[in-house]
Amino acid sequence: MDNQSVTAVKGFLAGAMHCGIKQSGKPDLAMLVSRVPATAAAVFTTNKVVGAPVVVGREHIRGGRISACIINSGCANVCTGKQGVLDAREMCQRSAEVLTSRGMVMQGRNVLPFSTGVIGHFLPMEKIRQGIDDLALHIGDSAEHGDAFAHGILTTDLKIKTAFTQIKSGRRMITLAGCCKGSGMIAPNMATMLAYVATDAAISPSALRAAVRDSADSTFNCVTVDQHTSTSDTFAVLANGMAENPRIEPGTQSCRTFSRALEELCDSLARQIAADGEGATKLVTVHVLGASTDTDARRAAMAIANSPLVKTAIHGGDPNWGRFVSAAGYSGAKMNPDKAQCQVGKITVFRNGRPADASLAEVQSVMQRSAVDITLNLGVGGKGTCRVYTCDLSREYIAINADYHT
Amino acid sequence: MDNQSVTAVKGFLAGAMHCGIKQSGKPDLAMLVSRVPATAAAVFTTNKVVGAPVVVGREHIRGGRISACIINSGCANVCTGKQGVLDAREMCQRSAEVLTSRGMVMQGRNVLPFSTGVIGHFLPMEKIRQGIDDLALHIGDSAEHGDAFAHGILTTDLKIKTAFTQIKSGRRMITLAGCCKGSGMIAPNMATMLAYVATDAAISPSALRAAVRDSADSTFNCVTVDQHTSTSDTFAVLANGMAENPRIEPGTQSCRTFSRALEELCDSLARQIAADGEGATKLVTVHVLGASTDTDARRAAMAIANSPLVKTAIHGGDPNWGRFVSAAGYSGAKMNPDKAQCQVGKITVFRNGRPADASLAEVQSVMQRSAVDITLNLGVGGKGTCRVYTCDLSREYIAINADYHT
Repeated sequence: MDNQSVTAVKGFLAGAMHCGIKQSGKPDLAMLVSRVPATAAAVFTTNKVVGAPVVVGREHIRGGRISACIINSGCANVCTGKQGVLDAREMCQRSAEVLTSRGMVMQGRNVLPFSTGVIGHFLPMEKIRQGIDDLALHIGDSAEHGDAFAHGILTTDLKIKTAFTQIKSGRRMITLAGCCKGSGMIAPNMATMLAYVATDAAISPSALRAAVRDSADSTFNCVTVDQHTSTSDTFAVLANGMAENPRIEPGTQSCRTFSRALEELCDSLARQIAADGEGATKLVTVHVLGASTDTDARRAAMAIANSPLVKTAIHGGDPNWGRFVSAAGYSGAKMNPDKAQCQVGKITVFRNGRPADASLAEVQSVMQRSAVDITLNLGVGGKGTCRVYTCDLSREYIAINADYHT
Repeated sequence: MDNQSVTAVKGFLAGAMHCGIKQSGKPDLAMLVSRVPATAAAVFTTNKVVGAPVVVGREHIRGGRISACIINSGCANVCTGKQGVLDAREMCQRSAEVLTSRGMVMQGRNVLPFSTGVIGHFLPMEKIRQGIDDLALHIGDSAEHGDAFAHGILTTDLKIKTAFTQIKSGRRMITLAGCCKGSGMIAPNMATMLAYVATDAAISPSALRAAVRDSADSTFNCVTVDQHTSTSDTFAVLANGMAENPRIEPGTQSCRTFSRALEELCDSLARQIAADGEGATKLVTVHVLGASTDTDARRAAMAIANSPLVKTAIHGGDPNWGRFVSAAGYSGAKMNPDKAQCQVGKITVFRNGRPADASLAEVQSVMQRSAVDITLNLGVGGKGTCRVYTCDLSREYIAINADYHT
């Protein structure tokens, strides 16, 4: 099977185009459509400043039935007051009307709106209206259409980020395919990115909501590029039931199988975000264990992953492990330095309160690889663990973000 | 009066030298001595991983009488277990012995030890022992000696940081003079730097402790360069009483006057740290007001000051105020975006949930200055406020910290 994009899933159409928001001429309007109304669940940013599309999206997801997602990139429609909300609603309404005219009957409330890009500017609605009308006529279910969708949602990303998996449910095969964007303004709670998973699973709304929430917690909420939780970002799953499997109900084996598949898919997307973080040259995985709780483990892992001193040491391939240990020390997590242990790759560098007998030259060579694993045991004898993905901090991050003009 | 260094304070001697820790040949051992035992108070890092000098310093400060501070730069003596503690004690003991032989009678427990530099390495004690013996013979009370001390405590700092003030107490004049180091691994709780204030005030121990704690809270604990709370750092005040003023007691007018003078001195030092942050090209002051509590205001101000997206926008002089507002949004502080207000310099850029009618060109010109003020009202109608100093994030920060080798 060649197509592993969202359009590989039964009943899904997609597409993207340039409608004139981005000066670069790159695609800036994208659409994902299910031929039949889908059961949907989503997780939204926890930022108190949210974009108008988040306000409208939260409202529409409550209805539980979603037929389409309409996304523009290049302008986030955040800090835009009432006009912003009107604009987000109009994106939904316009999409519903033109898709209905193509035979896919829906209403504005069955559409989720998304915008990503600069904050504090109004959407260029003339361009977007025209774009929606054109785009709705050109969506399709080919691999190219799915690929175009994955490109159309990007901002500073260098690569598209996609994942695909299939699971058996009785004699039926369920397909899950996703894609996401996210490169800067990436920190958890919630996803600080846009992520979409299309699936043809038949699944109860409550089972889907639980699977989405759990998957986000251990994947998208464990990615950080620059600790700046975005105002816009959303992870949405649309399940249209066209696999015709026996409906997945909460607490069943099939539900666990589906949840695990969704989590693995999200894990792949989350890793891709960290690896393509703005200016990233390395994927960094921080493992914390031996914490008194998972929450404490997460605090320590996030402190390590967000420290500019940690990220620059990794960028330089410098075996300066004191920065990793000391970041955990200020995280607020319970820690016993005299029993803590730190590993870089598989080399133990710190044990029982003092340097282990490691060769710094070997540590340095591990740190110069394109994927670096940092493991820290907090030494309090607990079972709490957390794994966080991040990237290094390079001059390129500064260039991208200091020279990015509004 | 020409001398405004720590040696301008009655009864204080100081000095510094190169003992061989730093490869650069710059001064790496410094000493501050009071001719008579001083009442002392200090605030230490809140990091759970602390250097051996912090362990020993906390013990010695409990005695309340301090005659000397011995500081090395270039090696932090952190993550060094029991050997590290023995080494820190030996620095005190050795200093006390050689100073006693010069007629300034003291014991090891009357000395505070400090170390700053790379983590995870043992002190080169041979060099330090010899250095202490030499240095104790060459301390003095000239401006040059005070200046040498201010240089001797530096690591990646480009500039020495000093402050000086005098207040009247009855017919007596009280002098306060301080200096500090700190450029990277700078975030509050506590000071993530070494700071010393020498004063000839006669003051009760409890009044001094309160003044030190309060001054640190509003100054050193409101500075951040890279949010990485250090393992070592300490703010210590030595008051030797040689001004012969009527002893300052808690709750009196003279106590308030002394506390205010100390706070102003610390405020000046804190600003100097931010302005000389690693790679800094601009001093940034973040003011948050209209918060429900001071704690909430601090959360929001710190989130803004620590966001790499905020710091890079300021570095680039980019009027991308959405980054300031959205950072407050994820800080955890109560916020009402519909009533929030943001100013860059004196220009209002965001009001009542939407962009204000500001000229982005004017905002840009304000942001290109060497000192940038960001003001955010959280819009919840409270009286909570906080002011935080930070700096921009430049390629030079990456260069300093990725190329700094252990």
